[in-house]
Amino acid sequence: MTRPTTIEALRQLCRDLPGGDDGKARDARARQGVLTKPPGSLGRLEDLAVHLARWQGRALPRLDKVGVLVFAGSHGVTAQGVSAFPAEVTAQMVANFAAGGAAINQLAKAAGADLKVVPLSVERPTGDFTRTVAMTEQELLDAVGAGFDAVDEKSDLVCLGEMGIGNTTVAAALCAALFGGRGADWVGRGTGVDDAGLSRKTRAVDAALDLHGQHLSDPLEAIRRVGGRELAAMFGAALAARTKGIPVVLDGFVATAAVAPLAKLAEGGLAHALAGHVSAEAQHRRLLELLDLKPVLDLGMRLGEASGACLAVNVLRGAVACHNGMATFAEAGVADG
Amino acid sequence: MTRPTTIEALRQLCRDLPGGDDGKARDARARQGVLTKPPGSLGRLEDLAVHLARWQGRALPRLDKVGVLVFAGSHGVTAQGVSAFPAEVTAQMVANFAAGGAAINQLAKAAGADLKVVPLSVERPTGDFTRTVAMTEQELLDAVGAGFDAVDEKSDLVCLGEMGIGNTTVAAALCAALFGGRGADWVGRGTGVDDAGLSRKTRAVDAALDLHGQHLSDPLEAIRRVGGRELAAMFGAALAARTKGIPVVLDGFVATAAVAPLAKLAEGGLAHALAGHVSAEAQHRRLLELLDLKPVLDLGMRLGEASGACLAVNVLRGAVACHNGMATFAEAGVADG
Repeated sequence: MTRPTTIEALRQLCRDLPGGDDGKARDARARQGVLTKPPGSLGRLEDLAVHLARWQGRALPRLDKVGVLVFAGSHGVTAQGVSAFPAEVTAQMVANFAAGGAAINQLAKAAGADLKVVPLSVERPTGDFTRTVAMTEQELLDAVGAGFDAVDEKSDLVCLGEMGIGNTTVAAALCAALFGGRGADWVGRGTGVDDAGLSRKTRAVDAALDLHGQHLSDPLEAIRRVGGRELAAMFGAALAARTKGIPVVLDGFVATAAVAPLAKLAEGGLAHALAGHVSAEAQHRRLLELLDLKPVLDLGMRLGEASGACLAVNVLRGAVACHNGMATFAEAGVADG
Repeated sequence: MTRPTTIEALRQLCRDLPGGDDGKARDARARQGVLTKPPGSLGRLEDLAVHLARWQGRALPRLDKVGVLVFAGSHGVTAQGVSAFPAEVTAQMVANFAAGGAAINQLAKAAGADLKVVPLSVERPTGDFTRTVAMTEQELLDAVGAGFDAVDEKSDLVCLGEMGIGNTTVAAALCAALFGGRGADWVGRGTGVDDAGLSRKTRAVDAALDLHGQHLSDPLEAIRRVGGRELAAMFGAALAARTKGIPVVLDGFVATAAVAPLAKLAEGGLAHALAGHVSAEAQHRRLLELLDLKPVLDLGMRLGEASGACLAVNVLRGAVACHNGMATFAEAGVADG
């Protein structure tokens, strides 16, 4: 499957999403019922195993090859003073990823996952969406395509995350475009802005909503006009994973906002996605509820970098280990109640 | 440190609990503040790293040697029809642990932990506490001692869990003894009893409270009269871990109830303990709140066997990996906001 090279081809892909494997999901659920434990007693672990079975198309899912994709981008809206950190930190953190010094380096290693960092023209910020569009159509397609191509079709699972100073403001604007509301309904403190910074974020989102108006009713136009490259790439990666039969784990507020257009473009468009965690960013919980996504972890994290998604991989590994490795009542000679 | 061989020696040990290492905890907190991430953005992971630093007495904590202790015991109160499973299942599950077929076998392996199963006179149930005491003083000391000795002093962390048909009723009785209330305030569905089973559990606890009365105001008498061997062993293991400088991770409702006497016997008696998860057993969340323990995971699990504690080890590994492995702002040349 090759990346879409026109907006129309991208729309078509989003309309034609493959479904999950209901038969394999049923097989997996039936197996959970005969393993040596009270029915349902592994709680969410049982559901997670069935989810992987459905979206991998395997009654015994596997997590041999787990990919962690971190996309990095720069944002013109940082000119509005929306972050506690200078815009240069995006490139500095990309260097830190390469040197192995960031949180995600440690978490990917601990989870037995392969980390791939994809910088997206970090030296060239998107347009400041309070004044113009964030991306041209070609820039949008390039970013979506970069995300699309980053998904290795041999992966058993892909985690999606990001780095980009200013991008919680971008995510807030995208959420307002997709779900309604104004800046105040969607902004949060991101990396840790003070009250004045929070007001600047609110005003920036409101300015974007006023400038782009009705254009934002189209989810793809919304991500082009008020999104960013790393968000478009996560959207493309989630789309690619669906077409390639790979379940995904989403990270926090920015990652969830980035893939939300897929839910708007197709019924069940995010059915293959799991929310790795609910972050401390103010509106993430509400966004997850709107998308009917139930987070695996709730640890007050708000770092991005796919950190929460990657940590959740360990829970998925536990779920798969139990699902595939436990004895049945019959095998173990245990009375089943 | 050898196991206490008299009730008075046991009381003395509980009174003389060592504190944590505040200096190492401060060092760890300071390190979190200079790692390449916005301050506080790793949320609970930061607190967990500091907790391990404090209770291991190491500014850079380690998890090289993680023990999972599962204690198994049989309960006379099963005669009151309090479980959805027959009492023989306890011994059958001990055999399943030995054969490697249970959930905890898979979860311990996935978490890189060493599983040790300690059956405690499984063929000889405790007294039915609706009619007599569960254990003699010597039986209590034997069980506490077995738990005490099971803690390897070279461990970096110990997870505590259990197997014992009927033991959510036992835990409910112990909670009522320690915190007040009647059976209806503390029982839940355990492995999955129906409404009639739930009523039998309630009545069994009420009968115990009526029979043992004021004797239950002493926490050690409470665990002797209405506890059970695997609960006493978890209590002993938590005590041993504290005296040996080892943090512990508690599993679900039964494990938490088992160690609760330590909080009653000494101020901060459970300060070295983490709640691995909050289980689906009805009163676990309330019990954790009473003990001021905040669960790491909330996954609707209700299996026991240390399964939730063991799964939480993966989160602790992530916390330690970030704490020890991340670069500082200075090391990475990243602007710190």
